[in-house]
Amino acid sequence: MYRSHTCGELKIGDITKQVTLAGWVQTIRKFGAITFVDLRDRYGITQLLFGENLNAELDAAPLGREFVIQATGIVSERSNKNPNISTGDIEIAVSSYKILNKSAVPPFTIQDDTDGGDDLRMKYRFLDLRRNAVKKNLELRYAVNRSARNYLHENQFMDIETPFLIKSTPEGARDFVVPSRMNAGQFYALPQSPQTFKQLLMVSGYDRYYQIVKCFRDEDLRADRQPEFTQIDCEMSFVEQEDILLMFENLIKRIFKDVKGIDYTEYIERMSWEEAMWQYGNDKPDIRFGMKLANLKFPLHSFPNKIAHLQSSLIGIGDCGFSVFDNAETVVAIAVSGCSEYTRKQIDELTEWVKRPQIGMQGMVYIKCSADGSYKSSVDKFFTEDKLKGIADKADAQAGDLVFILAGREERTRKAASELRLEMGKRLGLRKENEFKLLWVLDFPLFEYTEDDNRWVARHHPFTSPKPDHIAVMINNNPLIEQADKYLEHPYANIKANAYDMVLNGNEIGGGSIRIYQRELQEKMFAALGMSEEEALHKFGFLLGAFEYGAPPHGGIAFGFDRLCSILGGSESIRDFIAFPKNNSGRDVMLDAPSTIDDKQFEELQIQLNLK
Amino acid sequence: MYRSHTCGELKIGDITKQVTLAGWVQTIRKFGAITFVDLRDRYGITQLLFGENLNAELDAAPLGREFVIQATGIVSERSNKNPNISTGDIEIAVSSYKILNKSAVPPFTIQDDTDGGDDLRMKYRFLDLRRNAVKKNLELRYAVNRSARNYLHENQFMDIETPFLIKSTPEGARDFVVPSRMNAGQFYALPQSPQTFKQLLMVSGYDRYYQIVKCFRDEDLRADRQPEFTQIDCEMSFVEQEDILLMFENLIKRIFKDVKGIDYTEYIERMSWEEAMWQYGNDKPDIRFGMKLANLKFPLHSFPNKIAHLQSSLIGIGDCGFSVFDNAETVVAIAVSGCSEYTRKQIDELTEWVKRPQIGMQGMVYIKCSADGSYKSSVDKFFTEDKLKGIADKADAQAGDLVFILAGREERTRKAASELRLEMGKRLGLRKENEFKLLWVLDFPLFEYTEDDNRWVARHHPFTSPKPDHIAVMINNNPLIEQADKYLEHPYANIKANAYDMVLNGNEIGGGSIRIYQRELQEKMFAALGMSEEEALHKFGFLLGAFEYGAPPHGGIAFGFDRLCSILGGSESIRDFIAFPKNNSGRDVMLDAPSTIDDKQFEELQIQLNLK
Repeated sequence: MYRSHTCGELKIGDITKQVTLAGWVQTIRKFGAITFVDLRDRYGITQLLFGENLNAELDAAPLGREFVIQATGIVSERSNKNPNISTGDIEIAVSSYKILNKSAVPPFTIQDDTDGGDDLRMKYRFLDLRRNAVKKNLELRYAVNRSARNYLHENQFMDIETPFLIKSTPEGARDFVVPSRMNAGQFYALPQSPQTFKQLLMVSGYDRYYQIVKCFRDEDLRADRQPEFTQIDCEMSFVEQEDILLMFENLIKRIFKDVKGIDYTEYIERMSWEEAMWQYGNDKPDIRFGMKLANLKFPLHSFPNKIAHLQSSLIGIGDCGFSVFDNAETVVAIAVSGCSEYTRKQIDELTEWVKRPQIGMQGMVYIKCSADGSYKSSVDKFFTEDKLKGIADKADAQAGDLVFILAGREERTRKAASELRLEMGKRLGLRKENEFKLLWVLDFPLFEYTEDDNRWVARHHPFTSPKPDHIAVMINNNPLIEQADKYLEHPYANIKANAYDMVLNGNEIGGGSIRIYQRELQEKMFAALGMSEEEALHKFGFLLGAFEYGAPPHGGIAFGFDRLCSILGGSESIRDFIAFPKNNSGRDVMLDAPSTIDDKQFEELQIQLNLK
Repeated sequence: MYRSHTCGELKIGDITKQVTLAGWVQTIRKFGAITFVDLRDRYGITQLLFGENLNAELDAAPLGREFVIQATGIVSERSNKNPNISTGDIEIAVSSYKILNKSAVPPFTIQDDTDGGDDLRMKYRFLDLRRNAVKKNLELRYAVNRSARNYLHENQFMDIETPFLIKSTPEGARDFVVPSRMNAGQFYALPQSPQTFKQLLMVSGYDRYYQIVKCFRDEDLRADRQPEFTQIDCEMSFVEQEDILLMFENLIKRIFKDVKGIDYTEYIERMSWEEAMWQYGNDKPDIRFGMKLANLKFPLHSFPNKIAHLQSSLIGIGDCGFSVFDNAETVVAIAVSGCSEYTRKQIDELTEWVKRPQIGMQGMVYIKCSADGSYKSSVDKFFTEDKLKGIADKADAQAGDLVFILAGREERTRKAASELRLEMGKRLGLRKENEFKLLWVLDFPLFEYTEDDNRWVARHHPFTSPKPDHIAVMINNNPLIEQADKYLEHPYANIKANAYDMVLNGNEIGGGSIRIYQRELQEKMFAALGMSEEEALHKFGFLLGAFEYGAPPHGGIAFGFDRLCSILGGSESIRDFIAFPKNNSGRDVMLDAPSTIDDKQFEELQIQLNLK
């Protein structure tokens, strides 16, 4: 070893010991004849003191930032202690040193607040990784990994590796494919998830499976998506939904404890998908704060369970001659706490905010609920003060609150209300980085309608089971949609899935379902998704076959490992938690990959380019 | 949960408890009005007793092999105990049951000694995985995984994920490539190993890295190779070879302890590559038994360090008029213990064995060292009995032994002698399945000569450092080989690498090296391998760049995880230790992958087939 100790371990009790350290030169400070060097390694920083006797040598072989050196000397007490670092009580009086490797001047500073821009840091990722901020993220990632493995091991889960070179079965996202040289003209696909393999393992009797595993999706990369990403992938046999929820909320609680030192003892709230959309306009609500949606008007079909509720409590906002509300499919309000004194300018700015194309509203109505009990609105001429009060009450507004009202098409308006809620939550400091609120969202629709082919697509994936009560509806009805504009009246529109998402602070961190395990139901599902029998057999014959030989009831979940780490680390970007991430074009700018390949490779693979 | 207990946990102390089990029907035996069912799950087998009261139900809904059922009943003491299984003292008196899923009759029996052939079992791998023999292998694999992770964690190694979509840098083995849709005309490669990434992590200061990670090589699949395989991949900074050897022999000892319950306390032998080739004809000798090679004649250049030794001890076998020896480059003998009474037939059979094309010898000479002290040989007319005794003594033969002598070209003869030694070791029962002998092989040549391009190739990989003493030889000489037939006289031929292999029972289970960490030396290495400066920059510019910013001395090792598991499990086939392996054509016969892809996929990727 080039060292007797690391740069993070020497303490006051080590004084007078002779030690050898090795690491990187963080800083060099000269005070007259004496030179102080902060030596850095993975474990910390230790101050080295080069006395006058080493000056000639330092002149002959000068040190520089990021040089790798080895230094031997005696541990001494510092006169000027640094309480901010664990080795701050001591320094090393260097007796000899050796430069192990020089360094060019780094293109940016290796500091928490570096002067390097994103692109530069990605190109020199090996230097960016030296920064404490990035190192902490990777350490947190490893801690989550370790904690998850320990918990799952203690609960009899087995890590079983599934293959990476599999079969292309495009269904949902796009596959990355790999040309096979030995089977010319044929391709492997990289797995979007080990879904079918983990189900086969259940058929094989392995009972409790897990893997922390890379998955691949060739999608256009919107903000903060990566073509390769990591899942904590789990599956269990002989379970019902409740068993999965308990097992995996305890996994997350364990991770909170191990990684953040947080005892998450609260009950984890559960909410149906319909309730989440109704109250938050969003299937992954951030429940760290209230500001729930007040549904003033909405199309009946969207919330069939709300019809009774609707009749008793809906406020008649449609008969006031205000055409914006009259013509809108949906009208939604939220009450923003304590903002009744917002200026015209502030309200205008927020109105512009909801009019941006990303949000897409035409405008926004407000009601100021003044401290004196009066109500002022931008639509005073259409609504009496009583009516305004009625709306404000419906939104649970208190005196001093500001109510915003959005109107338009159901989907866009509800989404806009959700975005506005999150934005106001952020502005008012209600989304606290150190507060963590878990939530299960349940009872998702099994199907979504796609206009493109006038057919159903699986909302989760084609292996998700309907709710037991809904299996008969699925089996006994023809999936064909006769009239495109009346798809909502099709019995399939109301089939709910045995599926669940875990939401943390407004982010989906995991999702899963109880699976179909009967061949007939699985075949019906494929048919419902517009797959011919032949196509289903070609793509998933192995799974249908497996279901014939004693498939047990089973279900599972997969957590987005990158996302989970980023939330636990208090960051919005998953890239900060990946050692070597790709940019928005799917490029690794450090490697300069992807890149061209040799003619010989094309020849061996028997493929050629066909560029447009 | 569908069960209150597993099929492996109920004991005599549980008697009178009401329990619910779920699992697979292993066997059904009817005795008069009573039916016994062995119910199987991952944890074991429990006997179910269906009394007369359930006969009507069993008639209406009969059970079958591999049906999945749920059964509730009372734990009862068995009259006929089975000491071979952990639940053998009890049975469940079933009060009610439910068929959760039926099963077709499996195409082979789910037994240790199944009647299914290889191809059938691979097609129905999900059923093969149910067999206890396969399950034990995957459990062993998980135990090795867990043990390795625990050891590495305790030694401050961090699991850091490296990317799978990287840059194609064909050098040695062939890359699998992945066309990029977003960067049309360009390709990613799947990693053959995370080599350059783990080195970058060392440059980044991560110090101790590990990963249990899939790697990919598009090679023609000889017996027992897989296109995707798993490595335990490790790297450390600030270390010399000795540090690595100690750290990782202790890893393997820990795995022996955790997985096999074996205290491997012996010193782990070390042997130079040259010594291994000299004594065993093989760079991964099985040292569970002796039978070392006696080198009667060999080309001087192969063992430069043996020249002195040679002069003092070589036996003059070249002056006896036996042209086979006279014309041979190499003559090698081994003494097979206690076989002097082998019949003519037995010896003829072994002679045929060495004449097979895989071994490729022209014939074999023997000397019988009889118990009475006399020597008989197939070449009596060329050698006096004294001479025969001289050869036998050189081979360490005792009275009662049989000496085999092979002659021919150095490489082939030495390899044949090694194969014969292993074969005789096997026939004599010297390669015991439950004996484990570890060995470090050190000091490999840094370069190998390739006739194809009349140049050097890296024996390990281009990142391996020469021995410190040999760095100057490498730097100060031109790698160009002026005369192809005299390549052995080039100074590069004798440069040794700072590389090491760990060998277990004649199998290489791991290998690694101390790496180059200076840009100049790395550039010299690329040049030595015939890479132009431009090519080196294109392929490995990121690494050369990284070496300019303070790269620490570092080194590492990678273990072949599949192979390690198979040896620990006492099997010759790594496939038995992989959940979903591929066959010799790289196909997954269960999935039927690789397969064709859609026109749409070709179009999006902007590639097309170019079949010969």
